[in-house]
Amino acid sequence: MVAEVTFSPIAYIQSCYPERFGIPRQAGLVASAYADIVFEATEENKLALRGIEEFSHVWVIFVFHGQSYGDFKPLVRPPRLGGNKSVGVYATRSPNRPNAIGMSAVKLFGVIEKKRTLRLQVQGGDFLDGTPVIDIKPYVPYADAIESAQAAWAVEQSSLLSVSWSDEAEAVLIDCVEPGAKKLRCLIEETLAQDPRPGYERGKDGREGQRWHMQVSNYSVFWTVEKGVAKVIKLAWVER
Amino acid sequence: MVAEVTFSPIAYIQSCYPERFGIPRQAGLVASAYADIVFEATEENKLALRGIEEFSHVWVIFVFHGQSYGDFKPLVRPPRLGGNKSVGVYATRSPNRPNAIGMSAVKLFGVIEKKRTLRLQVQGGDFLDGTPVIDIKPYVPYADAIESAQAAWAVEQSSLLSVSWSDEAEAVLIDCVEPGAKKLRCLIEETLAQDPRPGYERGKDGREGQRWHMQVSNYSVFWTVEKGVAKVIKLAWVER
Repeated sequence: MVAEVTFSPIAYIQSCYPERFGIPRQAGLVASAYADIVFEATEENKLALRGIEEFSHVWVIFVFHGQSYGDFKPLVRPPRLGGNKSVGVYATRSPNRPNAIGMSAVKLFGVIEKKRTLRLQVQGGDFLDGTPVIDIKPYVPYADAIESAQAAWAVEQSSLLSVSWSDEAEAVLIDCVEPGAKKLRCLIEETLAQDPRPGYERGKDGREGQRWHMQVSNYSVFWTVEKGVAKVIKLAWVER
Repeated sequence: MVAEVTFSPIAYIQSCYPERFGIPRQAGLVASAYADIVFEATEENKLALRGIEEFSHVWVIFVFHGQSYGDFKPLVRPPRLGGNKSVGVYATRSPNRPNAIGMSAVKLFGVIEKKRTLRLQVQGGDFLDGTPVIDIKPYVPYADAIESAQAAWAVEQSSLLSVSWSDEAEAVLIDCVEPGAKKLRCLIEETLAQDPRPGYERGKDGREGQRWHMQVSNYSVFWTVEKGVAKVIKLAWVER
């Protein structure tokens, strides 16, 4: 019996989400969410990644970070349940768990070498920028894709909000170059459609004048919620 | 950036496989493989597991053990490729990886309390008896079940071998009480059907007289392979 186990990160994630607020609550909800899994371009890493491009999807096993550790409580209130009902932490994917391990299946686009790094380019993740990665595994459908699985309350939810844009925000979008206006629009719309507000606010219209803020890629996004529509009122480029 | 992360096991696995040899190469291949995930029956663990029974399947995140650590090499030769072709370790589920983390989706039957332990009773695992568990997460189909995923060479394979029994082995089977003759027969047949022999022997007829041995539950199983049939020649109860 081992008392504890120690792992060293094998890579780090560069993601379009520099802050926790706004990150989708599971992988796969925001298909446009892009990230690079960044390895050092050592000979060993090159060999260890050989053949991974033959898989369309990979599992990323990571360490939740950007949170205070040791604040684990056995019960959590999932946003999906409106933030009112308590369930055990092992019945959720909450980041506040005894061992802060996350796992997400993402689409793999390819592996590129760039400035002494090897980068797995993935989409559909729910990663905070800077996340340490402790393992990568191929997604093996015959073992992992259990279509018949029943998931209690954690069932698929279509978009919660539709998204509109102010003229001011539209104008910034049109000027933007990175990652491209069309991609950025998609990414922001898909992210806001999930309604990133806290559980107790979801499904409600926003209070008048209440402005929300999140960072997506190199942009600050400000929005309001009214009658089931998230309206992007302002978009501003920020240095990261 | 963190240099390393340390986790403490939250539970241990009691499984029908006391030795590495013979363990199915992925979860889900041997539906009859049973295991208990054994937690201490503390108040905290009772709360942390609340509601987990609403899920039909759970992910078990575990530490590969029963192997020498530090013998990680960047290339491995998957049995599925006949043991001849090298691929990167991250393109496989091999236990010999930089961080020896395993993850398996298993069917959850229920949670019972027994002698100061809380037991998650699961089926379909690929766990060595005594495996330390570092996390349990609900299986969430909308995020985890990616039917469209393409898996290169890791595609489903129907049973490799059919299984027959010697009269002697049949007689032992009929006498057995744990976990019941029918269940034990199923478990052994499903396990042998996967052809647990090393990659370079798979798909071949066995050498004449070559006997193989594995342990399943409380039984020693001896078999031969001939013309695509694994024949159980001897079954013997052993103290564990």
